[in-house]
Amino acid sequence: MSERVYATYWMETGGDPARTAEVIAGEQSSGTFVALATETAELKERSGARVERLDILDTAPTPSLPGGMVSDRYTRATLELSWPVENFGPSLPNLMSTIAGNLFELHQVSGLRLLDLKLPPSFTNAFAGPAFGISGTRKLAGVVQGPIIGTIIKPSIGLTPEETAQQVRELIAGDIDFIKDDELQADGARCPFEARVKAVMRVVNDAADRRGRKVMVAFNITGDLDEMCRRHDLVLAQGGTCVMVCLNSIGLVGVREIRRHTQLPIHGHRAGWGTLYRCPSLGWDYAPWQQLWRLAGVDHLHVNGLDNKFSESNDSVIAAARAVLSPLNEAAPMEAMPVFSSGQTGRQAAETYAAIGCADLIHTAGGGIFGHPAGVPAGVEALRAAWRAAMAGASLEDEATRSPALRSALGFWR
Amino acid sequence: MSERVYATYWMETGGDPARTAEVIAGEQSSGTFVALATETAELKERSGARVERLDILDTAPTPSLPGGMVSDRYTRATLELSWPVENFGPSLPNLMSTIAGNLFELHQVSGLRLLDLKLPPSFTNAFAGPAFGISGTRKLAGVVQGPIIGTIIKPSIGLTPEETAQQVRELIAGDIDFIKDDELQADGARCPFEARVKAVMRVVNDAADRRGRKVMVAFNITGDLDEMCRRHDLVLAQGGTCVMVCLNSIGLVGVREIRRHTQLPIHGHRAGWGTLYRCPSLGWDYAPWQQLWRLAGVDHLHVNGLDNKFSESNDSVIAAARAVLSPLNEAAPMEAMPVFSSGQTGRQAAETYAAIGCADLIHTAGGGIFGHPAGVPAGVEALRAAWRAAMAGASLEDEATRSPALRSALGFWR
Repeated sequence: MSERVYATYWMETGGDPARTAEVIAGEQSSGTFVALATETAELKERSGARVERLDILDTAPTPSLPGGMVSDRYTRATLELSWPVENFGPSLPNLMSTIAGNLFELHQVSGLRLLDLKLPPSFTNAFAGPAFGISGTRKLAGVVQGPIIGTIIKPSIGLTPEETAQQVRELIAGDIDFIKDDELQADGARCPFEARVKAVMRVVNDAADRRGRKVMVAFNITGDLDEMCRRHDLVLAQGGTCVMVCLNSIGLVGVREIRRHTQLPIHGHRAGWGTLYRCPSLGWDYAPWQQLWRLAGVDHLHVNGLDNKFSESNDSVIAAARAVLSPLNEAAPMEAMPVFSSGQTGRQAAETYAAIGCADLIHTAGGGIFGHPAGVPAGVEALRAAWRAAMAGASLEDEATRSPALRSALGFWR
Repeated sequence: MSERVYATYWMETGGDPARTAEVIAGEQSSGTFVALATETAELKERSGARVERLDILDTAPTPSLPGGMVSDRYTRATLELSWPVENFGPSLPNLMSTIAGNLFELHQVSGLRLLDLKLPPSFTNAFAGPAFGISGTRKLAGVVQGPIIGTIIKPSIGLTPEETAQQVRELIAGDIDFIKDDELQADGARCPFEARVKAVMRVVNDAADRRGRKVMVAFNITGDLDEMCRRHDLVLAQGGTCVMVCLNSIGLVGVREIRRHTQLPIHGHRAGWGTLYRCPSLGWDYAPWQQLWRLAGVDHLHVNGLDNKFSESNDSVIAAARAVLSPLNEAAPMEAMPVFSSGQTGRQAAETYAAIGCADLIHTAGGGIFGHPAGVPAGVEALRAAWRAAMAGASLEDEATRSPALRSALGFWR
């Protein structure tokens, strides 16, 4: 007996929900629009997707998405389907075609969203997962406990390699743990990758020699495969400790190949994620999506941040971060490190800590650090102090009595 | 002076449209949420995205998508932005991060959709595009003019290699031009890729020896890179003439690498496309999306079909097919072959031909062929006859007086 993969969807249909559930199951396995003599009962039993659960939620008078069947009411339901692993084998691309392929455009649905995914050991065991994960990242960044405090080089694009290196110099002087390229900064003519890495790593290595701790810089190697491998090798040769890729831009094959090649943690940026999640009646929740990238070998995964400047709710951010930190299954935990960003200051530390129950995360702040009236060192120290308070269960005001940097940060952190 | 990339969006905002346009331009280039001293006027002029055009369309009392700014009216507009190519260079993944990265989740927008993309020669010239395209595909399939008539192996999944080969045998006896794997059929345990290819190609080669024309079979090689290369090599060694990949499942890097490796046309399946297009206020139109895959080297691109069984409108299908057939620019035409499928019969031939102005396409039908009362040969002949009529400007009824197969097909084609 083949083990099975289970996927849960939110679905909306103008038709009979049970019939629509069967159509989806058929479309994504052995069925098609017309009955076929060759789709025998035995074949269907063996290879068909199975409707495991269908829970009616509510109805709406109008469809969430256009193009579906016309009706006077649209029923919403939670639908769980399962497939035998042997339909696709332990293959991430073919899993994706199955659980998130041609089903979203079915005429029968006026809404379909993938909420959850349960993969059995016979699937997950075929993957090595993140090579570094939480403990490997902590070791390389020299941060034994508490969050890894980070920031992003800004402006996103337009700085020269020397200007970038100068910003890194200031950040290291401010005792930051982690710095990343913006996702728009890869290998443009104004800031070529090689020149940027060399200029930045000169600064990073000098400081590491002096200070005994090396700041982790996530260089954005996103590009074609040969480019990414070459860029990874340059970062490694220069003593760098992290590479970043834009997951949606390179795809599952790109990430798998980089994982095979890399000797450094992979920082996974989710640029483009908005197209997949922002319509509530379509696409993906983060929980199933991030599983594929962890299996592919990503060590760090962006989850936005509480009270962010984007459109994502705090509930969604927390669910995403918890998902990234949850074991895939008992056989393959493969936890990755969530990366919080966007409008972040020490004010989000306590709530973030309370929501995820640990500090195994990268917390990046821009204005929250650079905006400090006493400069970058005070900005970094204030963020650290806020986390000390959060982890000790103290209030920011309390901790501020012991940290002048935090005290003055509270004046500008909104 | 760097050449520029132009992207056009449909946008909806609860704020001032001009301000929102600037926020999007900033977020996707040198700006961020706060003003930075380092974002100098010179840097912005050099590297910033530019708002080229902002045409207000209408307003709505409620937002299309949740999570955006709260307002009492939401303005819709067409927005054109441009970027200097030097920001990212001729790199498809980094182009994708720029034109379709972090912008969709901006708090300022309650809807954002990429409608169009114009790439300059300094970008497109870096790519070879499809290796076979229309003429190469016609040559390999032995179809000099008119559409390439095809079908998909069904059931999608669950057949053994021998059962698959038997279906291919019947189809070839029916004089079909093109057969493809379903996107769910890759290398599962019940129908292993190697056994399937060998069984099918025995039938294909035997028939080619007898008939002097080899049916084109698009084998679904979707998988990890090494698997895809190995599978491609097997298809080639067995005398096969086409490989298929699921574009969204393998990503841009996967497609680029297969293009580098392949000696066969790449049949591009768009499974998962529904997540990107089905919400009208989010995601991508097909026109910009398909450009990236043609640059990456895809020869055939799925466009659904007129009066399809999915939720896509005929207007959208026609726009997609026209886009696939349109030159990217004068320097790099790189036309690909559109693939029509889903609920197709000869009844769609005339309208399809009229809409795209040529027959450079693959027209796949399932029930429209298998359902013919006189069997597969009559089903294929009926579809061909319908196309002869379409191309000659004759009616189906007229042509049916010369084609018994068409005459009886008209009884069951709905």
